[in-house]
Amino acid sequence: MQISELSDRSGLTVQTIKFYIREGLLPRGSAVSATRAEYGPRHLERLRLISALREVGDLPVSAIQQIIAAIEDDRVSLHELFGVTRYAIGPHVAAPQDPHWRAAREDVDALVRELGWNVGDRAPARDLLAHTFVALRRLGFPITLKDLRPYVRAAAEVAEHEIGRVSDGMPRARAVQSLLVSTVLYEQVLTALHRLAQEDASSRRFGRN
Amino acid sequence: MQISELSDRSGLTVQTIKFYIREGLLPRGSAVSATRAEYGPRHLERLRLISALREVGDLPVSAIQQIIAAIEDDRVSLHELFGVTRYAIGPHVAAPQDPHWRAAREDVDALVRELGWNVGDRAPARDLLAHTFVALRRLGFPITLKDLRPYVRAAAEVAEHEIGRVSDGMPRARAVQSLLVSTVLYEQVLTALHRLAQEDASSRRFGRN
Repeated sequence: MQISELSDRSGLTVQTIKFYIREGLLPRGSAVSATRAEYGPRHLERLRLISALREVGDLPVSAIQQIIAAIEDDRVSLHELFGVTRYAIGPHVAAPQDPHWRAAREDVDALVRELGWNVGDRAPARDLLAHTFVALRRLGFPITLKDLRPYVRAAAEVAEHEIGRVSDGMPRARAVQSLLVSTVLYEQVLTALHRLAQEDASSRRFGRN
Repeated sequence: MQISELSDRSGLTVQTIKFYIREGLLPRGSAVSATRAEYGPRHLERLRLISALREVGDLPVSAIQQIIAAIEDDRVSLHELFGVTRYAIGPHVAAPQDPHWRAAREDVDALVRELGWNVGDRAPARDLLAHTFVALRRLGFPITLKDLRPYVRAAAEVAEHEIGRVSDGMPRARAVQSLLVSTVLYEQVLTALHRLAQEDASSRRFGRN
């Protein structure tokens, strides 16, 4: 197909597609004349991946370049590819390095060890959790392992289900999209369901009728 | 205590405290002379609630006014008070009313009915869930009840635990803070734990060592 059809089918402007080619996110089409190039289904698939990473993951071009490089390098295991993607998604919260923050971060590391989870030291989620611990303590809500148990269990069940959805034979680009969707969109699903379930639980416990 | 001590102990400036008094969020102190007023522990407690609602819930003054009015009106049940708070927290996503959005919103309503959950028609979480359904479908990830099951179960378990943490004798202002913390901060805890659990599950399934 020509670039105009690629534009129609991807919903992206020709200008945006040319920008992605210049940035090395999308391979050039094969030249069929001095002014025309031909694009195939792989280009369309790649554009869908880029759109997902930009729109859902809100990722900058540099992060997308890294993910695409990892997708194309077969020496990178699927687990490592997921690590690159997860690290790119962030969020990278500020680590202020004051005593409260350091204590919270140590609590997070101790929790991960106690759970026996295999998680990299630089996982952004460690800092995110520490950040939340600081906020909870500042409001006078102490954190105990007993309080965390239901959340740990819920998180583990959901994560297990999501990793189970990824099959070994799945194209790597699709596996990255699946991880992205699980991480960003299904967390929104979980948040929304959590609020609905809270209203229901509150109605059963405190409702007057 | 005088306003300067109230400022020290709450961590808020005198100017901010006076602003809250003008806006009706904080009762005036009792006048002990023409230029001095005396404040008590109730004022400090109220300032902690306002700070939590502003900083954690990111709520505007008008929403805080509504929540405080509901706290002080004993005819408002705890369930209704929670409803006011949850509605204020939002998020209020745009409902574009195009066919995709309407179909997604109908799916959400059908899901809530099928689960038998008692949830108001105007709950912001209904729109949030519909919004996410639209995004999932646009990326080519269909949504089935089977896919949603693990999330429904996780959300219900966590919500049940949180509502169980609220005791009947708890001061209403503290119950609102507890709900706020469960909704905003513990959702962040759940998100962070989810990402950590995902990395662990991925390592067990796809890791090379």
